[in-house]
Amino acid sequence: MPTAFVLDLQPGAHAARPQFPAQYAHGLFYHLLAAIDPGLSATIHAAKRVPFTLGVEVGRGALGLRVALLDDDLFQPLLRVVLHQSLDGLTLGQDRYRVARVLATPEGHPRAGRATWAEVHAAPPARGLHLRFLTPTVFATSRPDGRRSYTPLPEPRLVLGGLLSSLQAFSPLPYSTAEVEYLVPLLGDHCAVTRLQLRSDTYWAGRHPYTGFCGETEFRYADDLAEVRRLLGQLAALAPYCGVGTKTPYGMGQVDVLRTF
Amino acid sequence: MPTAFVLDLQPGAHAARPQFPAQYAHGLFYHLLAAIDPGLSATIHAAKRVPFTLGVEVGRGALGLRVALLDDDLFQPLLRVVLHQSLDGLTLGQDRYRVARVLATPEGHPRAGRATWAEVHAAPPARGLHLRFLTPTVFATSRPDGRRSYTPLPEPRLVLGGLLSSLQAFSPLPYSTAEVEYLVPLLGDHCAVTRLQLRSDTYWAGRHPYTGFCGETEFRYADDLAEVRRLLGQLAALAPYCGVGTKTPYGMGQVDVLRTF
Repeated sequence: MPTAFVLDLQPGAHAARPQFPAQYAHGLFYHLLAAIDPGLSATIHAAKRVPFTLGVEVGRGALGLRVALLDDDLFQPLLRVVLHQSLDGLTLGQDRYRVARVLATPEGHPRAGRATWAEVHAAPPARGLHLRFLTPTVFATSRPDGRRSYTPLPEPRLVLGGLLSSLQAFSPLPYSTAEVEYLVPLLGDHCAVTRLQLRSDTYWAGRHPYTGFCGETEFRYADDLAEVRRLLGQLAALAPYCGVGTKTPYGMGQVDVLRTF
Repeated sequence: MPTAFVLDLQPGAHAARPQFPAQYAHGLFYHLLAAIDPGLSATIHAAKRVPFTLGVEVGRGALGLRVALLDDDLFQPLLRVVLHQSLDGLTLGQDRYRVARVLATPEGHPRAGRATWAEVHAAPPARGLHLRFLTPTVFATSRPDGRRSYTPLPEPRLVLGGLLSSLQAFSPLPYSTAEVEYLVPLLGDHCAVTRLQLRSDTYWAGRHPYTGFCGETEFRYADDLAEVRRLLGQLAALAPYCGVGTKTPYGMGQVDVLRTF
């Protein structure tokens, strides 16, 4: 089931403010996976879509590392390894951090929690969603000549279509190919942006800077098909766990749902 | 040649703040056209693309009506009619306004001026343009089922492709069909948004509210073809006159070029 928890990390006495927090968090996560099982780390690293997203909040002194998982089998072993390794401290970049708390519920941290896949699929139907893009969000798209390009705009087909493709990749109850072929154009062409407030920002995901957008966008479905409203509700339930766009394993594309309607 | 002038309009003693300035300005403009020639007003009204955009700045007391023209034959007769009718005052909504000044140069008003078509076509090549969308901007697009939808996002294919289609519609030196077919995909797929700061806003264009975006966007051409850089320079030179998106004759989609590079 989609699960998100936040590690409250306290730096050691001489720790500096981390220079590349996203890259360090990414490295730490794969280190933890390798501690569960070296094969698992390699398998996930090689996967086309990885079943996690990371987010790093650098506060004064402390550091919040949010881990969102889409694979049911990862949560327990990962938590076990985190708690075990936390005895020596977790390494981020050059520094070691103590795991002060593991926050796994919305009471502990507003972006922690879990939803069963059944809950995602039974989410209340929605005609619209108002999303907040918490970290820079950008879509990797292919040009006709095959070269990669990046789109830092919340086009409905990219945002909503991207969420659907996460649902398809990880839900044990995916839509059929025929249903997807039917639904994708409806998300792209019949859902419109009806409100926005955006600014671009640069994010270092690993060794490269990416320009994405942060801010808010409201999407609204213009028609009345029950299937589309049901899907939009499901996508809203999933969005905080899977994020949107490229480089979500480095903390880009972190999304909150401000409201559905 | 593309021409823009600003009428500095002073209200009469009892004039209220105009309730629907865009609609009133639109009505006034067609009234002036009809005074030149009733046939001309009808012809332009029926045209698929009209050769003008309007902008209204409502200040305290005064009102600035910016008229941008893309048709060389309109400027002189329009100015003659404005000056003639200003003796009785120009009607906007329920109120009459005195034409205090006609500002036709950048020295008089930063958004007034003109460029010959030869100057537009000889504009310095550019690899990028940074545009400011002064008034809400939205694109009318067609859904596959033929119904109209509105896109309030500065997608390169919509912004740059729209400017090219204005150039094609009004320039006496348009590109050939083959050139356009070659250039359009390069604008859409090879020019990326590299910076943005946007917020949506609602604009009453006539009797209907439209949601568009205001703010700034930087577009950058990723490759190096001289034809594309030449075209981008031309589009930058034309943009302040033709605006972008739908309902420019009501004042939507007013654009300034902050810089080219």
